[in-house]
Amino acid sequence: MADPSTSPPLTRASVIEAHKLIKTYIHHTPVLTNASLTELASRPREAASLVGTPWEGRRPARPGKLNLWFKCENFQRVGAFKVRGAFHAIERLKRETGWLTGGGAQMGVVTHSSGNHAQALSLAARSNGIPAYIVMPTISAPSKIAATKGYGASVIFSGSTSVEREAVAAKVIEETGARLVPPYDHPDIVLGQGTVGLELQDDVEALMAGEAADRATGSSSPPTKKKGLDAILAPCGGGGLLSGVALSCEGTEIRVFGTEPSFQGADDAKRGYESGTRVESVSTLTIADGLRTPVGTVPWGIIYERKLVSGFYSVTETEIKDALRLVLERFKIVIEPSAAVPLAVALYNEEFRGMVEREGGGEGWDVGIVFSGGNVSLDALGKLFAGES
Amino acid sequence: MADPSTSPPLTRASVIEAHKLIKTYIHHTPVLTNASLTELASRPREAASLVGTPWEGRRPARPGKLNLWFKCENFQRVGAFKVRGAFHAIERLKRETGWLTGGGAQMGVVTHSSGNHAQALSLAARSNGIPAYIVMPTISAPSKIAATKGYGASVIFSGSTSVEREAVAAKVIEETGARLVPPYDHPDIVLGQGTVGLELQDDVEALMAGEAADRATGSSSPPTKKKGLDAILAPCGGGGLLSGVALSCEGTEIRVFGTEPSFQGADDAKRGYESGTRVESVSTLTIADGLRTPVGTVPWGIIYERKLVSGFYSVTETEIKDALRLVLERFKIVIEPSAAVPLAVALYNEEFRGMVEREGGGEGWDVGIVFSGGNVSLDALGKLFAGES
Repeated sequence: MADPSTSPPLTRASVIEAHKLIKTYIHHTPVLTNASLTELASRPREAASLVGTPWEGRRPARPGKLNLWFKCENFQRVGAFKVRGAFHAIERLKRETGWLTGGGAQMGVVTHSSGNHAQALSLAARSNGIPAYIVMPTISAPSKIAATKGYGASVIFSGSTSVEREAVAAKVIEETGARLVPPYDHPDIVLGQGTVGLELQDDVEALMAGEAADRATGSSSPPTKKKGLDAILAPCGGGGLLSGVALSCEGTEIRVFGTEPSFQGADDAKRGYESGTRVESVSTLTIADGLRTPVGTVPWGIIYERKLVSGFYSVTETEIKDALRLVLERFKIVIEPSAAVPLAVALYNEEFRGMVEREGGGEGWDVGIVFSGGNVSLDALGKLFAGES
Repeated sequence: MADPSTSPPLTRASVIEAHKLIKTYIHHTPVLTNASLTELASRPREAASLVGTPWEGRRPARPGKLNLWFKCENFQRVGAFKVRGAFHAIERLKRETGWLTGGGAQMGVVTHSSGNHAQALSLAARSNGIPAYIVMPTISAPSKIAATKGYGASVIFSGSTSVEREAVAAKVIEETGARLVPPYDHPDIVLGQGTVGLELQDDVEALMAGEAADRATGSSSPPTKKKGLDAILAPCGGGGLLSGVALSCEGTEIRVFGTEPSFQGADDAKRGYESGTRVESVSTLTIADGLRTPVGTVPWGIIYERKLVSGFYSVTETEIKDALRLVLERFKIVIEPSAAVPLAVALYNEEFRGMVEREGGGEGWDVGIVFSGGNVSLDALGKLFAGES
C-alpha cells in the first residue's frame, strides 16, 4: 500500500482521477432497472405487515414513486466492487517514489482476507505481474482457497482471530518485503471504491436523458426537469465502499445513506454515527457476511467527521432474505446477501420510506442501489432458504 | 387462435413481420457474453472427465474458440420467451376477419398450461383488455396459480392428464366462445417465438462490428472477416422456440441445432429426427421441466421435413445441473433448468464439440445460446442442489 501521507486528497476530483487509473482493468458494470421492484418499493406497505416491527400501529409511509436504479457490481470482475480498490492500490503503489525502482514489484503485496478482497488483490497483482500473498484462516471454505489460488496468489494459512492473521501477515512482510494492502482502511482503497458512485451517477443521467428524449419525440409532454439521482443507498461493512461513494457525490445534490444489518450489533456504523463515537469492534454472524466488520478510521472521517453520509438505516435478517429472494426470483440476477441490504432498506425500512415521503413531497425519489457483489454459492443459498417456501 | 389456414407463410420474412407486430409489447432482451464460460467451453475436456460417458477413451474434442453469445430471455416479461408467441397470437387474432367484429375480444382466449405459457397468455390478453381462461391441474403449485391470477386471468381447475385438461378447455370454449391458444403447435406461435432468433442475430452482428471498430482504432490489426454467428443452440420441448429460431435463420448461413435432456426419453425430437418419425408421446420427469413435451406437428414440419434444423444433441441431468450451477455462480444470473440445456451441450457434449472441431477447422465457432427463461424458485433451486457441495 502506498504511504497514506502520499495519497491524493479525499475529494470527488480524486475519485475521478482514480477512475482514469483503473478503468481499463475493470468492467463498467450496467445500471439496470426493474419495473416490478420499483412498483413494490413505491407501494405503501400493508399495515398488517408492520405488526411486530418498531412501526406497528403507525400509518405506513407513502414515499411516492421510489424509482430504483441498480448498479450491478455483482457483474464486476471477481464478482464484486473490491477490484476497484485493489487495482487502484496497485496503480498508486506503482507511482510511489522508489517502490518500483526499489524492487517493489518483485517483493509483491500481501493482505489478510478470506473474502472478495483476497481475490480482488490477487487478480490486480497478477494483472501487473506482481506476487500476491494472501493470509487466510485454515478454516476458510475450500472453494475460496481454490479461487484465490486460481488467481495465482500464494495462500498462507493462519489461525482465525485477527491477531493471529495479522501476526502471520507481519511475518510475510518481514520475509518477503511485500507491501500490505488492507481491505478498506486506506485512502487509495476508498478512492478506488468511490468509482462505483461516479459510474452510477453518469449512467443514470444518461438513461434519464434518453427517456426524456423518447418522451419528447413520442408525445407532447414537457421534458422532465429531473437530471439525476436524489440519493444512493450503499451497504456499509468496513466503510470503504460507502465512504468512496460519498466522496463521489460531494458537491452534487445527491444524498448518500449507509445501510447495515441490525443483527447482533452489526449496525455499528449507525450506532457510531448517532452517538458520535466510532464503534471499534463488532461480533456478529449476520448472513450479510461482507458487513461483519466495524467501520475503519479513514472511512469514518468521510462518513461522520465530514458528514458526507446523511444517515444510516438498518434491516433485520428476515428483511435481507426477503429482498434477496425478490432479486433472484423477480430480477433473475444473483447477488450475495450483503448486496441485498440497501434494497431491503428501500422496501422495508419505514424510517427511510417516511423520510422519502417528507423530503420528496409525495412525488418520490430516484434512488441508486448498489448491488455490491454476487459471490454466493448455490449451496449457501440453499442453506439460507432451506425449509422455507 | 387465428385459423392456421390464414396464418402467414412459415418464412423468415414472416418472422420479421411478427416482430413488427409484437415489439412494443416485449422486452428486447440483452445478448450477453461471459469470458469465463467461453473459456471453459473452448478448453478441451479432461480425458478423465469422459470416464463413464459414451466418449470414454476417446481423445477429447478440440473445438477451438467456442465463443458463446447468450440471448437472455430469462429477462423477458413474465420471465420467458413465451410472451412473444402469446402476443403474436393475439395480434393475429385481432387481424382475423370477423373476430373483433364478432365480439371475439369480449369472448376471450383460453389455454391449458401450468407453465410459462399460461402467464404469457394472461399478460398478452390483459394488455389487450381481453379475458383469458387458463385451465390448470388442481395439483399446480400455489405460486403458479397465484402468478397466473396476478395477471388477471380466470383460472379453471381440471384433472392432471392431458385428456382431462382438454375436456375442461373444450367446456370453457363452449360456454364462453373463447378461442384456444395452444402453447406451441400453431404457426402464429412459432412465428412469434422466432423473433428471439432475429434479435440474437442482429445484436451479435452489432456487437461484433463494435469490437471490430474498437480493434481498428486501437491497433493496426486487420478488421475481422466474421460478421455473425456460426450456429444457434436452442432448447426443444414442444418445438415452438426451436422451429421459430430455425425459420429466423432460413437463408442465412447460421446453423440451428436442437438440444434436449436425455433422461427417460426426453430426447424425443432427437430420436424422431434420427429415425425419420416424429415421437408422439413422452413421459419423463427431467429437471428441465419445460422440455417434457413431445414436438408438435407444426414445429416438426420446419425442423424435420424442411430440415431447417441441422441436428440434435442431448445431455444428462447431471450435465444440466452442472451448467445451471455455472450460470448462477459465475454468470450471476438466474435461469431455469430448461434454459441450461443448450449451454450443457456446448460444454459437455463431445459429439457437438467434435463437430465444431471438424467444421470450424480448429478455429472455433461463434455460437448463440438461447437462455429461454428464468422462472425457478429459490426453493426449487435449493431442492435441486440439496446435499451437493
